[in-house]
Amino acid sequence: MKVLLIGATGLLGNAVMKELEEKHDIIQAARHNTDVKVDITKPDSIKRMFEQVGKVDAVISATGDAHFGPLEEITPELNETTIESKLKGQVNLVLLGMDYVNDGGSFTLTTGVIMDEPIYQGASSAMANGAVKAFTKSAATEAPRGIRINSVSPSVFQESPEGLQAFFPGFEAVPLSKVALAFRKSVEGVQTGQSYEIY
Amino acid sequence: MKVLLIGATGLLGNAVMKELEEKHDIIQAARHNTDVKVDITKPDSIKRMFEQVGKVDAVISATGDAHFGPLEEITPELNETTIESKLKGQVNLVLLGMDYVNDGGSFTLTTGVIMDEPIYQGASSAMANGAVKAFTKSAATEAPRGIRINSVSPSVFQESPEGLQAFFPGFEAVPLSKVALAFRKSVEGVQTGQSYEIY
Repeated sequence: MKVLLIGATGLLGNAVMKELEEKHDIIQAARHNTDVKVDITKPDSIKRMFEQVGKVDAVISATGDAHFGPLEEITPELNETTIESKLKGQVNLVLLGMDYVNDGGSFTLTTGVIMDEPIYQGASSAMANGAVKAFTKSAATEAPRGIRINSVSPSVFQESPEGLQAFFPGFEAVPLSKVALAFRKSVEGVQTGQSYEIY
Repeated sequence: MKVLLIGATGLLGNAVMKELEEKHDIIQAARHNTDVKVDITKPDSIKRMFEQVGKVDAVISATGDAHFGPLEEITPELNETTIESKLKGQVNLVLLGMDYVNDGGSFTLTTGVIMDEPIYQGASSAMANGAVKAFTKSAATEAPRGIRINSVSPSVFQESPEGLQAFFPGFEAVPLSKVALAFRKSVEGVQTGQSYEIY
């Protein structure tokens, strides 16, 4: 399959790349250092990416920035950075990319465990995760031409920096290779509207 | 208690008003036809409302517009109307209103069944519901001074117009009086971070 991988240069994107590259033709997209450049916070940039890449069988989003900070310091403006990227960025990939996905193809978006099990400073990111999960479940019921839409919700990664892991006390860190399997399940499998939880 | 009820003029707001008015001092807010005017899509309007009203014991949001339409016709712009109102409007009530809620007070926001059980044309609204539910759960863990944050997720109302009920085939419509009870539970009860599902 022809797979468009957005966020290809990140920790997660790299793991997904490794999991899929033997079997699939991967087109890497990211803000920098890839052939295809995209800034998912800008609908025009998403449109240009799809025009450049053309038809694909799978679109994977392994990206999305979110604001982390104490609740009492989250302003509407800081929260907006999460909405623009992790929330709208991913939703808009589906809204703007549908016509570029072949019949029977798929979208796979990324959420995260903290929508289900909150962590300190995580309210804004949890909000985006919950939005993407619910959008995925609902949009999947209306996707045309057999196109499937799933999301993957990982826990913190074993490969994440220790400083980040410290925000997840008692959470079982998961290997990126295991998270990447969920993306393979979404791309090559049959289910739609799922939230694959790797906790 | 002093209760600020936003969306007081709507079907749900009216039912919540009836449930709470005997026991509490209700300040009604809405876009029109109330003493306190607020447009939750505008952070400045939310700020002015709280400055006008001052300290309260409970903030209830029984409001939030959402775009309904077939998935393939949802543009980023149409989706934005949902994000501005049902999603950010409600989240910003919490972000901007925290300092106006007395110790041990509460916020109660509104989501809806379609985040859990999708309906046709509901993807944008489901997205907002999922966002508000996850934000509520996470923000509740960080709310200061014993302040609680819950959300209420109703099914379609028995009192909803038949044309709207037709979008919920096989869903059990619930009486507004039963939905209003969940708001009382949130305001007068002890739990926080809950999503009260009235399905």
